[in-house]
Amino acid sequence: MAKTPWVGEALSEAAYSAVELSAAGDVLFVLDQRLLPTEQRYVSCRDVAAVASTIRDMVVRGAPAIGITAAYGMALAARAGEGDDADAYRKRMIAAAAQLRATRPTAVNLDWAVRRCLTTVADHAGESGLQRQRQLVDLSREIHREDVASCRAMGRLGADRLPQGATVLTHCNAGALATGGYGTALGVVRAAWASGKLAGVLACETRPYLQGARLTAWELQQDGIDVTVITDGMVAHCMRTGRVGAVVVGADRIAANGDVANKIGTYGHACLAREHGVPFFVAAPWSTVDLGTAHGDDIVIEQRSREELARLGAATLVPDGVAVYNPAFDVTPAAYVTAIFTERGVFEPEQLNV
Amino acid sequence: MAKTPWVGEALSEAAYSAVELSAAGDVLFVLDQRLLPTEQRYVSCRDVAAVASTIRDMVVRGAPAIGITAAYGMALAARAGEGDDADAYRKRMIAAAAQLRATRPTAVNLDWAVRRCLTTVADHAGESGLQRQRQLVDLSREIHREDVASCRAMGRLGADRLPQGATVLTHCNAGALATGGYGTALGVVRAAWASGKLAGVLACETRPYLQGARLTAWELQQDGIDVTVITDGMVAHCMRTGRVGAVVVGADRIAANGDVANKIGTYGHACLAREHGVPFFVAAPWSTVDLGTAHGDDIVIEQRSREELARLGAATLVPDGVAVYNPAFDVTPAAYVTAIFTERGVFEPEQLNV
Repeated sequence: MAKTPWVGEALSEAAYSAVELSAAGDVLFVLDQRLLPTEQRYVSCRDVAAVASTIRDMVVRGAPAIGITAAYGMALAARAGEGDDADAYRKRMIAAAAQLRATRPTAVNLDWAVRRCLTTVADHAGESGLQRQRQLVDLSREIHREDVASCRAMGRLGADRLPQGATVLTHCNAGALATGGYGTALGVVRAAWASGKLAGVLACETRPYLQGARLTAWELQQDGIDVTVITDGMVAHCMRTGRVGAVVVGADRIAANGDVANKIGTYGHACLAREHGVPFFVAAPWSTVDLGTAHGDDIVIEQRSREELARLGAATLVPDGVAVYNPAFDVTPAAYVTAIFTERGVFEPEQLNV
Repeated sequence: MAKTPWVGEALSEAAYSAVELSAAGDVLFVLDQRLLPTEQRYVSCRDVAAVASTIRDMVVRGAPAIGITAAYGMALAARAGEGDDADAYRKRMIAAAAQLRATRPTAVNLDWAVRRCLTTVADHAGESGLQRQRQLVDLSREIHREDVASCRAMGRLGADRLPQGATVLTHCNAGALATGGYGTALGVVRAAWASGKLAGVLACETRPYLQGARLTAWELQQDGIDVTVITDGMVAHCMRTGRVGAVVVGADRIAANGDVANKIGTYGHACLAREHGVPFFVAAPWSTVDLGTAHGDDIVIEQRSREELARLGAATLVPDGVAVYNPAFDVTPAAYVTAIFTERGVFEPEQLNV
């Protein structure tokens, strides 16, 4: 498949897109992030089941990108229901929403995006199949555009808060690949780099899935931003030896009390940042804030498979028969978070629910 | 090659040996730990150059095992110098020592073992080739036996200090594979398990070389000790959720002020242990204590190759052209260390030099 298989303009601001809908609205192209950095290949999805698979199997990942992908999945479901009457259409769309929600439990943006689509479904179920379809395509594209604009806004706000000449440490990939095409944590990095404020980036490789080594390194390399990859266990040493000016990470869900669920490993970096006097920032769109969840410990932490940790390509990393524990996320208590960058402004974590 | 290629009894107390000298003293068998857990294969060394390669290329690793291997390398050098006169013998042995010392800079046991051998060389250079050879074989076997006895002793002392029913978190491999055949940190684990005090072990996989996933998991599995592998970034989450009763790690060099150099990642675990009220123990033979190094920051930290971090088997983890930083060790300041277990007793880190 060609490098950019869609026709016309992409909504992503990067030279690549995590996800783009075809101009005709009939095919969703999803970049297979499992193959990066070795190969740049897009998966074509024509129905909601295919879209759900791309989320579940981590073809696409990153809370905002998952939300956008799910919205496009709803648009494809509306297309499939062109001939439905109002009742059948509602049922179809509720089933599609359930299928998408069942894929991954921790990122709140998925639920948020699907809910927005269901509101439109409820308001317009009685209209023509073509009208309904157009509404969902427009809404999903709007969700995509909003995300890019939000990332731009939080990038500017966040860059203002970074120390001049700082090296930023980041975890996992909260970049163009994890969003509509600019990035949350890496949006801050891009804005700071553009304004000459940034010395460079330390990217934690982020085991077990290596989003930092494979994805963050790749996307910063594409943009010509200085990046050095370290293992997750090197963070404390790098901080003690003065190599880290600030930590900036994304988020999968932020509870009302300011606790932050993000990729496993984040909480450790936050502890180490406090121990070494390094500011710890979270960058996330407001859609990641879940005021319906009071406390971080109420957030469901997804458990991933043994295989994802125990094997890598053809290599066996953990002997057969030995147990592994593989939570995908951890929770960083609000007390460890210096500030949260959103498109609505910069918040202290305790101020979110005011 | 057969699983245990040497003839006669092994000095290791485990069902496998990191290193064993043949009964005739002419071949050193070194278990190729790069192949574990997939394959159990021994490399045969007949001269000091081959022995130095096994250390440099990490066929064998772990500070005590490196020391023992180097001593055996000196014994092979003495054998090669059977026909030397006293002067030629001294020169040969000093060159062999230099070759062995040049392999890896951080572990002090290597230097300590080679120095012991050189003392014997200096005292007996004028004796017959066969006598000199016998002296070095006896000394290197004695260093090996002493190590096993030391590990046994520190294992008992350390097990006494663990909380009843604790799950022990360990990093890298400080086990039978890293020593003469019982283990430092895993010696404590073995003793605690035997006495019914241990719930189980959490083994950090220990990127980039995966000694925890590949070696610690394998050797505890051989002994029937409950072990669960986690990534290095999961430690903070495991501590916050009450899964860790104590941390026990080995050491590559301990400075006079009690600062501990050990596998990269150790210092982060120590910070997190203090943050969560978890005791942090170091187990190491007295030969790891380097009273000649005043402060941990005086310890030379070995830098390893880009390849070790950026590739794994056939897989590319970091895009070509992206920089990596790959220090092999870090330094944990004495203030983070609860106690050091040695064969001479249990020390607070500040008491080593008293």
